[in-house]
Amino acid sequence: MTEPPAAGRARARSEHTRSAILETALRLFAERGYDKTTMRAIAAEAGVSVGNAYYYFDSKDHLIQGFYSRMTTEHVALTRERIAGETDLAARVGIALECWLEVAEPYHRFAGQFFRNAADPSSPLSPFSHESAPARLEDTALYREVLAGTSLRIAPEIADILPEMLWLHQMALVLYWVYDRTPGQRRTRELAKRTAPMVARIVTLSRYKVLRPLVRQAEALVRDFLIIDEGGNPAPPDPA
Amino acid sequence: MTEPPAAGRARARSEHTRSAILETALRLFAERGYDKTTMRAIAAEAGVSVGNAYYYFDSKDHLIQGFYSRMTTEHVALTRERIAGETDLAARVGIALECWLEVAEPYHRFAGQFFRNAADPSSPLSPFSHESAPARLEDTALYREVLAGTSLRIAPEIADILPEMLWLHQMALVLYWVYDRTPGQRRTRELAKRTAPMVARIVTLSRYKVLRPLVRQAEALVRDFLIIDEGGNPAPPDPA
Repeated sequence: MTEPPAAGRARARSEHTRSAILETALRLFAERGYDKTTMRAIAAEAGVSVGNAYYYFDSKDHLIQGFYSRMTTEHVALTRERIAGETDLAARVGIALECWLEVAEPYHRFAGQFFRNAADPSSPLSPFSHESAPARLEDTALYREVLAGTSLRIAPEIADILPEMLWLHQMALVLYWVYDRTPGQRRTRELAKRTAPMVARIVTLSRYKVLRPLVRQAEALVRDFLIIDEGGNPAPPDPA
Repeated sequence: MTEPPAAGRARARSEHTRSAILETALRLFAERGYDKTTMRAIAAEAGVSVGNAYYYFDSKDHLIQGFYSRMTTEHVALTRERIAGETDLAARVGIALECWLEVAEPYHRFAGQFFRNAADPSSPLSPFSHESAPARLEDTALYREVLAGTSLRIAPEIADILPEMLWLHQMALVLYWVYDRTPGQRRTRELAKRTAPMVARIVTLSRYKVLRPLVRQAEALVRDFLIIDEGGNPAPPDPA
């Protein structure tokens, strides 16, 4: 075993500092509230200078993006591990949701109080914002994998938009989770278990001829009103 | 024309005062924010004593209930007027949504900033709360009328819960509306126009045999996880 080069050691130290600042920030947000926690207080608690804290995170908002990014990476890794070998769509969707709830559980108290800042799509803290695009796209890509690993034939009209729809379904669950006061967010876990087979059933049913017009309308609706483009805005409406 | 009796005059004066306090409160909430507006300031601006303001409204939260109640009454009256003679379900649902948007438009700025307080179902300000039950039940009953006035046969499994489902659909639209920054909330109006026929289509399709299991699951899901009982809580889950 050779000693890592100086650059490697510096990088490791830098990642350690970055992580320490993020951990401290999340703890203080949970304890004092997001609005009342200053970068100065975060730096002091993390044992770094204010300048150093700003070197890693330009603002408090960037700390939230760091949090999203970490959660998403954990969610993707855990889901990939657990869906391997599973080909049933309902099971795969259920696993993806379950993994999100598992990864998010330690942050429930924190998420609950900071959601006030996040529900507005024009806030950089919103999961729909331009700033949150990297985490959103990573999680949407995960749902593409969830769909790809089944033998199910998917209606061509919704093949493109389905990963986004599954991500929106996850967001609806997150909204429920934020206000879930049962221990370990048990109710949201039950809800996920119940909705996963329904989502799979809807995907299956979307091939039936009688449902095609509705599927086409739903697809257009999601595309026109819900999917956020790179600039953080829903796609423009058709000219009236 | 005879002079109204003293009791009638007193009642009219009392209603006038109540209404003046409510108007003033809504204006101040919009201008200064809900959290920063005190009952003292509302009373001063409305030209009544603080004691008098508290005589009509026990707290700021009660003012919001007064606001909900007034909006709902206006929504019900306007919708009833406009659906008369219309038997197409899509048209009837569309009218109900359009009327809500029309009645709510003057309060958009206000609703946007106070929604922060309302998104939590345990807050008395939430449309799902125990305190908001009267307005919620009145609006749900309106959707019962919307459904009753069509010749459409409704699947027995969802006949009972359908008015609540339509109310939830309206709430989803309200959530979209709160963050809609287009002039006159044009995008939300378009969204309502697009979803109304889809809702009607789903109601129609729910009679198809192939869809029955999904309809039954959706009905149970709404009942177990979304409908709020008298105490402001979702119905208890089945014992695990």
